[in-house]
Amino acid sequence: MRILSKYTQAITDSLEGAVAQKNPDQLYEPIRYILSLGGKRIRPALTLMVCDFLGDDFKKAIPAALAVELFHNFSLMHDDIMDNAPLRRGEKSVHEKWDVNTAILSGDAMLILAYRFFEKYDAGTFKALAELFSETAIQVCEGQQLDMDFETREDVRVEEYLKMIEQKTAVLLGASMEMGGIVAKASEEENSLLYEFGRNLGIAFQLQDDYLDVFGDPETFGKQVGGDIIANKKTFLYLMAQQNGDAAQAEELEHLFSITPADPADKITTVRKIFVDSGVALATKQVMERYSNHAFQLLEKMNISEDKKSVFRAFGKDLMERNV
Amino acid sequence: MRILSKYTQAITDSLEGAVAQKNPDQLYEPIRYILSLGGKRIRPALTLMVCDFLGDDFKKAIPAALAVELFHNFSLMHDDIMDNAPLRRGEKSVHEKWDVNTAILSGDAMLILAYRFFEKYDAGTFKALAELFSETAIQVCEGQQLDMDFETREDVRVEEYLKMIEQKTAVLLGASMEMGGIVAKASEEENSLLYEFGRNLGIAFQLQDDYLDVFGDPETFGKQVGGDIIANKKTFLYLMAQQNGDAAQAEELEHLFSITPADPADKITTVRKIFVDSGVALATKQVMERYSNHAFQLLEKMNISEDKKSVFRAFGKDLMERNV
Repeated sequence: MRILSKYTQAITDSLEGAVAQKNPDQLYEPIRYILSLGGKRIRPALTLMVCDFLGDDFKKAIPAALAVELFHNFSLMHDDIMDNAPLRRGEKSVHEKWDVNTAILSGDAMLILAYRFFEKYDAGTFKALAELFSETAIQVCEGQQLDMDFETREDVRVEEYLKMIEQKTAVLLGASMEMGGIVAKASEEENSLLYEFGRNLGIAFQLQDDYLDVFGDPETFGKQVGGDIIANKKTFLYLMAQQNGDAAQAEELEHLFSITPADPADKITTVRKIFVDSGVALATKQVMERYSNHAFQLLEKMNISEDKKSVFRAFGKDLMERNV
Repeated sequence: MRILSKYTQAITDSLEGAVAQKNPDQLYEPIRYILSLGGKRIRPALTLMVCDFLGDDFKKAIPAALAVELFHNFSLMHDDIMDNAPLRRGEKSVHEKWDVNTAILSGDAMLILAYRFFEKYDAGTFKALAELFSETAIQVCEGQQLDMDFETREDVRVEEYLKMIEQKTAVLLGASMEMGGIVAKASEEENSLLYEFGRNLGIAFQLQDDYLDVFGDPETFGKQVGGDIIANKKTFLYLMAQQNGDAAQAEELEHLFSITPADPADKITTVRKIFVDSGVALATKQVMERYSNHAFQLLEKMNISEDKKSVFRAFGKDLMERNV
């Protein structure tokens, strides 16, 4: 992403030295491995951009940004065990390349190392960053637990699903931005706006992820279109249809999400049609836009120049259009 | 333990409310479960006792003490997965009672919750506590990794083994004591003495654990005497014999630690005899005493009354004599 490239480059440069050659190698090698797999580094880049835009040297925010990136990769390492995921960014996941014990312990170490990056700051900043970090991290754990609980529950409400994606994904985007504000010593009000901007955009992004799984362009979506339908994953659209669709549509969906045909093409077409006919596709777009519009409204309240606001706006637009 | 009972009681009382009824239940119930299994609460009690003895209200140290206890139980929850341990304190371990995913995620949450207890303190104290905590926690991870590595290594040196028990066990005892000093705003020198007292005593304790496995009194040891020999666990005594014993003894030991007879009585008797004949039993006692004596010497340097020193001394003696 062009807007963030200056910051992602700084993150990439710093990450290499962030987890130095330490012993025992068996503990640190998986950490270096998962960090080497790349990823877009959007979260830490946002921390740097915010600090930059609030008038402080963005390099000051590098330790906080690295903490965010280490935490994110810690959660991927442990989630991959829980989700039994063989791949991470096209390469073997840590528990596949080594074993489950390695992925547990190296993940634990990453979480602790994340906290240690805050030690670079004065006591007041340290406390503010660590508090926000802990509050966010515990929500990410709660979100992951809800996500796992939902797999075996038949009565998940749309509101619960929104809470889950907020905790599992959106709060970390909000916290990444607020951390940039904390380092730049922004006011509490400014920090709160930054957090809410990120959180609302994060929810919108995740809802759009569910939407694009059904209606996305295979060229630009980056994942297999229809993947959630094939996996019978109860996304926002499914839950909306169950909760608000008519009885016949709900019943047909429930049946379709209980089968796994060898050729899923017909199933995908039928599900897509139900989502359109029931009004769920439109409703999802509306909910999504409510969150992204709210994010952009918050942006207007920020005490930064119009130029900088337009960069934030462009970032939000790029994120939603999957140009990141 | 009589000396600590006032403090352990305070910990027990506080732990009940420490992890309140929170959602999702599936995340927090395993945490409440492992905390309810008890344990001697020696580490958090030490945090309180130190704060008390350094002249501050010991109740001030309760949040720091709870962080120590949550961290300790986090490490047990994850270690039990890694060690495939079905039981914890005579009850089902968390991954047995629920499943591995639950034990991973609830463990992660406990580690984060541990950090959150430090939020009760002012920024300076918060930073000092969290830094010591992180430094200790990462060492505990490193120690656990070394312990796992050693299981498949044939060339473990006695010095490496000492490093492993220091990291896996002793540093947390040292940190528990220093945290009491930090809360009581003791000098850096005093805090360092407290830490080193705990660390040295912790190493002595762990060496004695290895010794008592071979030579302990079944009435007072609390574990099965000979358990390490039956499990072919390469303890300090085994490694000493390998490194310093004569070739014939080393070879016989190596053979004995590769077999698992149905009736282990003869094996235990032979191993015990080799440990005595080779001088390893005596040498282990000497190394152990070097550490415990060093701990008691450090105690003399502390700037506290003779009365209080004698309580610390009594605690150390009780700990080594397994009267805790």
